[in-house]
Amino acid sequence: MELKNLDKIVALCKNRGFVFSGSEIYGGFANTWDYGPVGVELKNNIKKAWWKRFVQESPNTYGVDAAILMNPRVWEASGHAQGFSDPKMDCKSCKQRFRADNLIEDHSHGKVSAEAMTNEEMETYIAENKIKCPHCGNFNWTPIRQFKLMFETSRGTVDGEKDTVYLRPETCQGEYVNFLNIQRSARAKVPFAIAQIGKSFRNEITPGNFIFRTIEFEQMELQNFCKEATSFDVYEDYKKQAHQFLLDLNFKDDHLKFHDHDKLAFYAKAACDIFYLFPMGWSELNGIHHRSTHDLSRHQEFSGKSMQYVDPVTNEKFVPNVIEYSIGCDRLVLAVLCEAYDEETLENGETRVVMHLHPALSPYKVAVLPLQKNLSEKAKGILKTLSKEFMCDYDEAGSIGKRYRRQDEIGTPFCVTIDFDTLEDDTVTIRERDSMQQIRLKTNEIVSYINERIKF
Amino acid sequence: MELKNLDKIVALCKNRGFVFSGSEIYGGFANTWDYGPVGVELKNNIKKAWWKRFVQESPNTYGVDAAILMNPRVWEASGHAQGFSDPKMDCKSCKQRFRADNLIEDHSHGKVSAEAMTNEEMETYIAENKIKCPHCGNFNWTPIRQFKLMFETSRGTVDGEKDTVYLRPETCQGEYVNFLNIQRSARAKVPFAIAQIGKSFRNEITPGNFIFRTIEFEQMELQNFCKEATSFDVYEDYKKQAHQFLLDLNFKDDHLKFHDHDKLAFYAKAACDIFYLFPMGWSELNGIHHRSTHDLSRHQEFSGKSMQYVDPVTNEKFVPNVIEYSIGCDRLVLAVLCEAYDEETLENGETRVVMHLHPALSPYKVAVLPLQKNLSEKAKGILKTLSKEFMCDYDEAGSIGKRYRRQDEIGTPFCVTIDFDTLEDDTVTIRERDSMQQIRLKTNEIVSYINERIKF
Repeated sequence: MELKNLDKIVALCKNRGFVFSGSEIYGGFANTWDYGPVGVELKNNIKKAWWKRFVQESPNTYGVDAAILMNPRVWEASGHAQGFSDPKMDCKSCKQRFRADNLIEDHSHGKVSAEAMTNEEMETYIAENKIKCPHCGNFNWTPIRQFKLMFETSRGTVDGEKDTVYLRPETCQGEYVNFLNIQRSARAKVPFAIAQIGKSFRNEITPGNFIFRTIEFEQMELQNFCKEATSFDVYEDYKKQAHQFLLDLNFKDDHLKFHDHDKLAFYAKAACDIFYLFPMGWSELNGIHHRSTHDLSRHQEFSGKSMQYVDPVTNEKFVPNVIEYSIGCDRLVLAVLCEAYDEETLENGETRVVMHLHPALSPYKVAVLPLQKNLSEKAKGILKTLSKEFMCDYDEAGSIGKRYRRQDEIGTPFCVTIDFDTLEDDTVTIRERDSMQQIRLKTNEIVSYINERIKF
Repeated sequence: MELKNLDKIVALCKNRGFVFSGSEIYGGFANTWDYGPVGVELKNNIKKAWWKRFVQESPNTYGVDAAILMNPRVWEASGHAQGFSDPKMDCKSCKQRFRADNLIEDHSHGKVSAEAMTNEEMETYIAENKIKCPHCGNFNWTPIRQFKLMFETSRGTVDGEKDTVYLRPETCQGEYVNFLNIQRSARAKVPFAIAQIGKSFRNEITPGNFIFRTIEFEQMELQNFCKEATSFDVYEDYKKQAHQFLLDLNFKDDHLKFHDHDKLAFYAKAACDIFYLFPMGWSELNGIHHRSTHDLSRHQEFSGKSMQYVDPVTNEKFVPNVIEYSIGCDRLVLAVLCEAYDEETLENGETRVVMHLHPALSPYKVAVLPLQKNLSEKAKGILKTLSKEFMCDYDEAGSIGKRYRRQDEIGTPFCVTIDFDTLEDDTVTIRERDSMQQIRLKTNEIVSYINERIKF
């Protein structure tokens, strides 16, 4: 399968306002990105589609929006305070730092997995294979040291007692600590799920591949609390739902594959990812994990508060099993852009760049284009009506062909052209992005015509 | 005017799942709060209403979603790295820390404003008035010291070079640094605005009054870039729009007032707030500031990049003036809850607690209530259809009167009751929250009936 060109997509993202380098006027800032006018709409539409599917339309699923800064004890219970680190080596020649597992995997072109290796095994592998520094080419490594991935800050309210506080490295702890608050206030019965969309932070040094891996990123995830007996059914069900969600967003099935984890955490009963065929190759897009009773039991231990659910019928008390389904929002934005990007050769030999976005995800649902400048008053009246319903673009500069191309590049599914007949009979031309076909509609039919075609 | 009781609202928020204490099972965590199932919907609906009004329906307004972690030079240009701090004093007896200006304002019951006082003047005032420690009652203060409000963390990628990084204390710098990227990619012409919704962080020690003041908070704000000649018109226009937005969300006009700032920053040409009558008294809800060319000029100076806009007609080059309109999202959630909260005495003498939320803001648009358990299959079929359109609740526990009360407390505008007639003729009873009036509808009329009544 031919891979798409990431550089072209990154360039389009910058030129058309999907994604800019973070703090660009200051030379950027390592692995941060800012979503521009069309990027923020795309990202918000992805979040809305996910929330609609996994919260609004899912029985027994409840949302939460927990704070990024949590009581530090949370990260002791989760194990992050003690163990969340990467094995890193410094090149003594050029002072650059690398992840040892990445050095091995890149050197072997992905044929060797360092996932299950100890630090000693990695050091031995790197020595035996004489893996050189990718930056300066020397073979001059320090031993492996573990570097913390959590960003630390401090609350510092009282002198001499600088409390260390962490930026959360994952959102799911917000569901665990609120498990009983939500169960009680929503009077929820197992199996039920708590869902969250929010930002997490990791002090990553790995090159990011654009917005694939960033030091701050948004997660869309849910934790299902269930009985052990049904837990594998719940796990399999989320695998299906996760897959279907991507298909419904117009992903081609042969660009997706399931990947079971080679090595499970000691508490986990099952874990898999869905990989997407990114321009840089197959990479993780989302995960589904069977986490047993581990998370709630740890919080029960560390907080001293019962995390038991009481069955309202049988009065049985137990700590539920947890099935986690998690997808990276920024990563999904990238996957959606890659999947939608296309260069088509038209009949006249010209190339058309077009984003075949699902219309529900398109930043603008419709662009209003007056054929000539003296039609702009009429066009702006139509724009005002449509803006009450949809995000709309408006463009009166350049030939109509050029204006169609601009909308194609940002994935606008419909263009409405206002011409002199519009003044006479209140009809417009509406042009569809993918087929490029045009039909004539009454202006008061535009809203329902579009509404029927942008549903998710 | 009678003030509403904040304690009752806080208790309802916890019991019904609007807002929980952050990390509650660990005893909470200073001034952090987690939004529960209905809270996250309310907050998201507020964000959607704001975005619809100020981005979707506003010509020449473009969104951005910038990273929280920015290049540290941004905070040198903005002045925060040097000067963003609070004047604090420690009680030497009990070791608690307080803001000197708050001590004065609380002691004088708001009659003395410390806004314009120097540290020396504050120390003198506190000494002359013998203001005691609110915690232990002693008069035993350290001198005033300035404490930084920005949370610091570090990127720490290379040994010995721990770069200090800040959690942004305000979102607007994301607009300034992206000003030209967005102007170019959107081909925007002044006056145009860039809008953002996102989290900011401040290391506050002041008691927060629930979600009024928190160490992490979400801002909804926009920066309008305009010519100096029109800048005061733009300023006045946002004052009107900001006011109208709150009225349209069902705020009573006599619960709102404009307040011009007593003291302007040296660069500012005008600044005002809209105050809302919170349960704790009149407090700031949003601000509109005329910031002159200050922000863009500073970034031009610190980045070495031109921040000039080139007029496409006259070729005139200039650094635009900036008008800022900013509203705290969490603060608006609190104001909306306080404004909506009501205890009504019914004809039978009972008290009904009801949230008169604007239907566009209501967490659930409709609750589906089968009159008896053996109607739940039919009810769940209707729920499934409605869930494709709206956030819905479902409740089959307790008397219908109790179930109506539960929905009233969380502000659900419509309840659909399924009874035995529903099985016969496919009609339901739909009950409106505020009037408590009931009408009979065909099931296939419910969606359009509700849709017509929840628009913003």
